[in-house]
Amino acid sequence: MSAAPRRAGQLSLGAFLMETGHHIAAWRHPDAHAAGGLDFAHYAELAQTAERAKFDAVFFADSVSVRDTHVPSLSRTARADHFEPITLLSALSVVTKHIGLIATVSTSFNEPYNVARKFASLDYLSGGRSGWNLVTSSTETEAHNFSLDKHLDHALRYERAKEFYDVVSGLWDSWEDDAFIRDKASGLYFDPQKLHTLDYRGKHFKVRGPLNVARSPQGWPVVVQAGASEAGRELAAQTAEVIFVAHQTLDEARQFYRDVKGRLARYGRRPEHLKIMPGIFPVIGRTQEEAQEKFDALQALIHPSVGLQLLANMSGGLDLSQYPVDGPVPDLPETNGGKSRQRLLLDLARRDNLTIRDLYLRIAGARGHQQVIGTPQSIADQLQQWYEEEGADGFNIMSPWLPGGLDEFVQYVVPELQRRGLFRTEYTGRTLREHLGLPRPANRYATQREDALRVAS
Amino acid sequence: MSAAPRRAGQLSLGAFLMETGHHIAAWRHPDAHAAGGLDFAHYAELAQTAERAKFDAVFFADSVSVRDTHVPSLSRTARADHFEPITLLSALSVVTKHIGLIATVSTSFNEPYNVARKFASLDYLSGGRSGWNLVTSSTETEAHNFSLDKHLDHALRYERAKEFYDVVSGLWDSWEDDAFIRDKASGLYFDPQKLHTLDYRGKHFKVRGPLNVARSPQGWPVVVQAGASEAGRELAAQTAEVIFVAHQTLDEARQFYRDVKGRLARYGRRPEHLKIMPGIFPVIGRTQEEAQEKFDALQALIHPSVGLQLLANMSGGLDLSQYPVDGPVPDLPETNGGKSRQRLLLDLARRDNLTIRDLYLRIAGARGHQQVIGTPQSIADQLQQWYEEEGADGFNIMSPWLPGGLDEFVQYVVPELQRRGLFRTEYTGRTLREHLGLPRPANRYATQREDALRVAS
Repeated sequence: MSAAPRRAGQLSLGAFLMETGHHIAAWRHPDAHAAGGLDFAHYAELAQTAERAKFDAVFFADSVSVRDTHVPSLSRTARADHFEPITLLSALSVVTKHIGLIATVSTSFNEPYNVARKFASLDYLSGGRSGWNLVTSSTETEAHNFSLDKHLDHALRYERAKEFYDVVSGLWDSWEDDAFIRDKASGLYFDPQKLHTLDYRGKHFKVRGPLNVARSPQGWPVVVQAGASEAGRELAAQTAEVIFVAHQTLDEARQFYRDVKGRLARYGRRPEHLKIMPGIFPVIGRTQEEAQEKFDALQALIHPSVGLQLLANMSGGLDLSQYPVDGPVPDLPETNGGKSRQRLLLDLARRDNLTIRDLYLRIAGARGHQQVIGTPQSIADQLQQWYEEEGADGFNIMSPWLPGGLDEFVQYVVPELQRRGLFRTEYTGRTLREHLGLPRPANRYATQREDALRVAS
Repeated sequence: MSAAPRRAGQLSLGAFLMETGHHIAAWRHPDAHAAGGLDFAHYAELAQTAERAKFDAVFFADSVSVRDTHVPSLSRTARADHFEPITLLSALSVVTKHIGLIATVSTSFNEPYNVARKFASLDYLSGGRSGWNLVTSSTETEAHNFSLDKHLDHALRYERAKEFYDVVSGLWDSWEDDAFIRDKASGLYFDPQKLHTLDYRGKHFKVRGPLNVARSPQGWPVVVQAGASEAGRELAAQTAEVIFVAHQTLDEARQFYRDVKGRLARYGRRPEHLKIMPGIFPVIGRTQEEAQEKFDALQALIHPSVGLQLLANMSGGLDLSQYPVDGPVPDLPETNGGKSRQRLLLDLARRDNLTIRDLYLRIAGARGHQQVIGTPQSIADQLQQWYEEEGADGFNIMSPWLPGGLDEFVQYVVPELQRRGLFRTEYTGRTLREHLGLPRPANRYATQREDALRVAS
């Protein structure tokens, strides 16, 4: 445990849901719901489980393609068929009452008017529980579904993303909060003074507005981001209210936390108005040994073709498919793909005397996120330490398989966090903003008018 | 009643839902839910009412802008704030079990990959009840929200729409119906032979595919259209399974019906595989007088500024706002807008000696759709005649105000139709296709393989 003075407040928890679970072989787990990716009842149960445990939100990642560059390995994973997140969250809004609903939507393959509208609409459906995870997307397979030969450059993507955000947040202010009067007697439905036309003209977008949805319960749906590059950090410092991030060590997490929070003052923002939530991949046992056995059992379900493809992806092209999987890792010439990552993997294999199977098992699991294998106590210890030592404001829980992995976290780890005073035992707010302790943004036009009045008086 | 031989089968009914109702002053009706446009409970109740009456579907029109060119009149209507239809229908899928869910999405302001995905996703959420009303959109205010200075030309819009449809329907075939095996023992999740890459290359779109949603319960969600122009009819003949249309007279309806059904053979399609459903705006009374009084009461709620704007819109710019509303229609010089429509209105006013108010009341109401004011019997007579004399395969019910207008239709007119054997008393199918009597499309690739096998054997 940390010797630092006890940090006040409580941590946030998100349930990062993914089809049959985050482990690449999750769908083969005996208790996993293999067809869960397109079964609404599966997600309804998961969201209700997370809500029973008072999670802040459920969260869905997204990509707008099938990553079918290597079909033989893809065909052995449950990554190709799943709900589109906005439709899914709209349906989930009906079977939940409190929990936040966060979906990923790309700024590279959508139009801001449509996105502003969908999240405002979801905010109404859910009574103020919607959140938008703004991503720029990074794969060529996605670009090929949108009439592009290749994806936009990184810098251009982020430039477009910033404009996209400016348009979306501008459209969310089209109507002041009290614009709609709906007075049957006089016949006045809205106050024309409280309708505002954005008239945005940028390099990437020209959007007139106004939005055809009233200002939503949260004012603006919560804006989430997940980019860790320099451009991503800077965009997050300007615009994000939550960051989902992947860290392997507390040092790395603290460094990121300090860096991003340190950028906020420049934009007139306060550190507590941006929540940093690393992903955590928990494998829970009554003993450390039991947890490890559970993890090993999952690992054993990884088909060699899936494992070899993980290695190829991770190394930018290393092809070991012609060698015996339980034999030594051969000394291969480097390919053009990613030389430093290839060197790293080959050195690791050499140092620890790994077979090919050993090597891919080392990198399978949490996809760069923190993997915690332990007892409810040891897992709570680790979350507490990361929270208290300012590596995190909360965590995005990436259950290895579903629904069982989430059930176990809710049954064993959440009560342990609650016992320590680190997590709520009841919802105290109504909206996602309130759960996260984020302020409700004022409408820019109402603020301008108030400022003008102050000056005039 | 018609002397024609009794037409077999039963008619279809859609509930065309619009915020507080289709009458322009609906929201001021004493029983209308004025804030219904953004109240999910309002729509849940409406959809459940329609489902109790065994309607085929609920339907939402859409536009991606506020038509704010004349704010003083707009501010006296309930047309500016409403749910985005895909989010709304996704939520409605949870509170209904049988009824179809049809949403309008424009081919001009979206990308086909996103649209294919959302409707397939909704089809899974609803167990096979989704339908896409493909529109090309027609207003400049929409174009201005999508980085365009003006809307695409009519011909170009339809060219894009046809490509859009080809991409969407192609993506819906990405996976064969039995592609997903999900065999935990062998580790095979899907059969790689049953995954297909579209690789579409057209003038407007280049889309590789495959879609990241499995083939949906209906194979393809039902494709609906509403265009009545020559290009619209031709596209419908090629691609639509339902047409929503506006007719004022049976003659007009029969002519359209014959024309469009006559185009199908050219595309190898059968007449019964395209359902034509005109809109009907019913005002229901126990007597004809009571119905007329109800309509007059609604009409009296139209604020003059709303009425004058209706006239201006309908005539392409006629401005009568400077004249006394209960005085005669002055003889104005024609503007550039729409000379023939202006002449028509002015001649009508002269002939019937109308005041300005009389004139706008004549054109208020059903927006070009059939307005039927009468008893449950006389309304059923009319629907029966249109159905039996092949002016319609069914009707899209546009209740003047909500929820009361739909309640009355369900309570009084539907039982009358059922008594006459013209409408179902129970759902017999599970999917929207089954309700409408439409075939489930075969997957093109499965068909190709079967054909190849037949040739080879």
